[in-house]
Amino acid sequence: MCPPSPVKDGQERGYVIPIGGAEERTDSGPVLNRFVDLCGGDEARIVIIPTASQLPDTGDKYVEIFTAIGVKQAVSLTINERSEAGREDYLEQLDQADGIFITGGSQLRLSTILGGTKVSQKIRRLNAEGVHVAGTSAGAAIMPEHMIAGGSPGFLPTADSVSLAPGLGLTNALLIDQHFGQRNRLGRLLAAISYNPFMIGVGLDEDTAIFISPDHQSFEVVGSGAVTVVDPIDLSYSSMSQATKDDALSLLDLKMHILSQGCRFDIVERKPYPPK
Amino acid sequence: MCPPSPVKDGQERGYVIPIGGAEERTDSGPVLNRFVDLCGGDEARIVIIPTASQLPDTGDKYVEIFTAIGVKQAVSLTINERSEAGREDYLEQLDQADGIFITGGSQLRLSTILGGTKVSQKIRRLNAEGVHVAGTSAGAAIMPEHMIAGGSPGFLPTADSVSLAPGLGLTNALLIDQHFGQRNRLGRLLAAISYNPFMIGVGLDEDTAIFISPDHQSFEVVGSGAVTVVDPIDLSYSSMSQATKDDALSLLDLKMHILSQGCRFDIVERKPYPPK
Repeated sequence: MCPPSPVKDGQERGYVIPIGGAEERTDSGPVLNRFVDLCGGDEARIVIIPTASQLPDTGDKYVEIFTAIGVKQAVSLTINERSEAGREDYLEQLDQADGIFITGGSQLRLSTILGGTKVSQKIRRLNAEGVHVAGTSAGAAIMPEHMIAGGSPGFLPTADSVSLAPGLGLTNALLIDQHFGQRNRLGRLLAAISYNPFMIGVGLDEDTAIFISPDHQSFEVVGSGAVTVVDPIDLSYSSMSQATKDDALSLLDLKMHILSQGCRFDIVERKPYPPK
Repeated sequence: MCPPSPVKDGQERGYVIPIGGAEERTDSGPVLNRFVDLCGGDEARIVIIPTASQLPDTGDKYVEIFTAIGVKQAVSLTINERSEAGREDYLEQLDQADGIFITGGSQLRLSTILGGTKVSQKIRRLNAEGVHVAGTSAGAAIMPEHMIAGGSPGFLPTADSVSLAPGLGLTNALLIDQHFGQRNRLGRLLAAISYNPFMIGVGLDEDTAIFISPDHQSFEVVGSGAVTVVDPIDLSYSSMSQATKDDALSLLDLKMHILSQGCRFDIVERKPYPPK
């Protein structure tokens, strides 16, 4: 795919909202409520993409969750095959959406089933036109241009501790991982950003999201866990290119920030701010 | 205790060598061999302090290991009670030492049995006079002025994820943790340095050591694993003082370095260097 869809004159992008998985799914859950508020609250129309999940009722469950929160309309688009990802009725549903929600499951299902289809083009286009896009777990992983497809647990990186694949391309400044503290994933995020240290690594704990602003210049942390930011911009030395499978790596001059509820991060200046 | 014992005119300190545990214990193990070389190789007299261990043969095993490496003399001082830590024959043995080796076990056994005794005063004094002191696992943990006594695994810090106790005070610029990658201890090291962000946190993997130079201005990494350095000197915000037990913490503007064999770190300038 390619960088975020261009914005037309007079339009503003929607928020991009990756969630670390296992978000609180009640009408008092901070992440889903903030998403619904952005989408218009009781006027909001939410379209759910449950493709990542192999469970048949994932979409229906999110319809119930969003209905309980109090949106005007929540519908789920069943897409289990690439042939379903061009259905005209689905594209029409998406055109009515104020917000799009991508569920958890497997991010490789998302990329293999949706990649290059009319539905994924539509999601990118609608986000550029102001529709907010949230995704949890696999739905968060798919959002960046470069997606973490899999990897090994552990907080120290090794040369083969992560595998990457092209993602949906809603952001290209950030590389996103999820279930981050719970599944001990710092090592694979460090490996991923050290392959090409221009991106900022963002590790999302469960029940924790970042709300990336429409101008893509900053994000804010919402939820009960932490967001770990690893920034390799000042990286002075990396042994990644010489390392083999289990070698201990050297990575000198990384920056790290641990952010919780209310913290903000300026993506352009690469600078964190405490809660106001 | 207090900062490192002062050095008299014309003398130079010995190296301080914390090891992350499970070092290779053969005559080709890089860490123990480098220690023996510093101590004089086949002329070296090594005194072993097995107090951390509750196993009766730990001292004898290290006598065998150092003998196999080829030192002139290796003796182990059995000290299981505070009353044994003032024995004149032990102090005389220490006076003959070129190197002192503190085994693994429990660092609280080391601090409670040796703290404030003539043996611990002697170790501090001898190190200031040029005797090299190495310690593995608990023997590494005891070395700094502030010792990590225990804590919870996980790479994210929480307010109660670490407990500190006074250590032997052979270095006061560094806070040391061990079995670091293997036991997932980044969180407790981050918690420890965020209590009072003047120290540099050093997490030692197994079979990996730092050799702190006699002038205490730098260290070099030796061994098969990684050394994780977390430096809070630029910390711009910490929520540690307001956080309760399981709260997600915020720590903004940490520096992190992952160092492997041959990397050096300038403690005064707080700057890492790649292998030469």
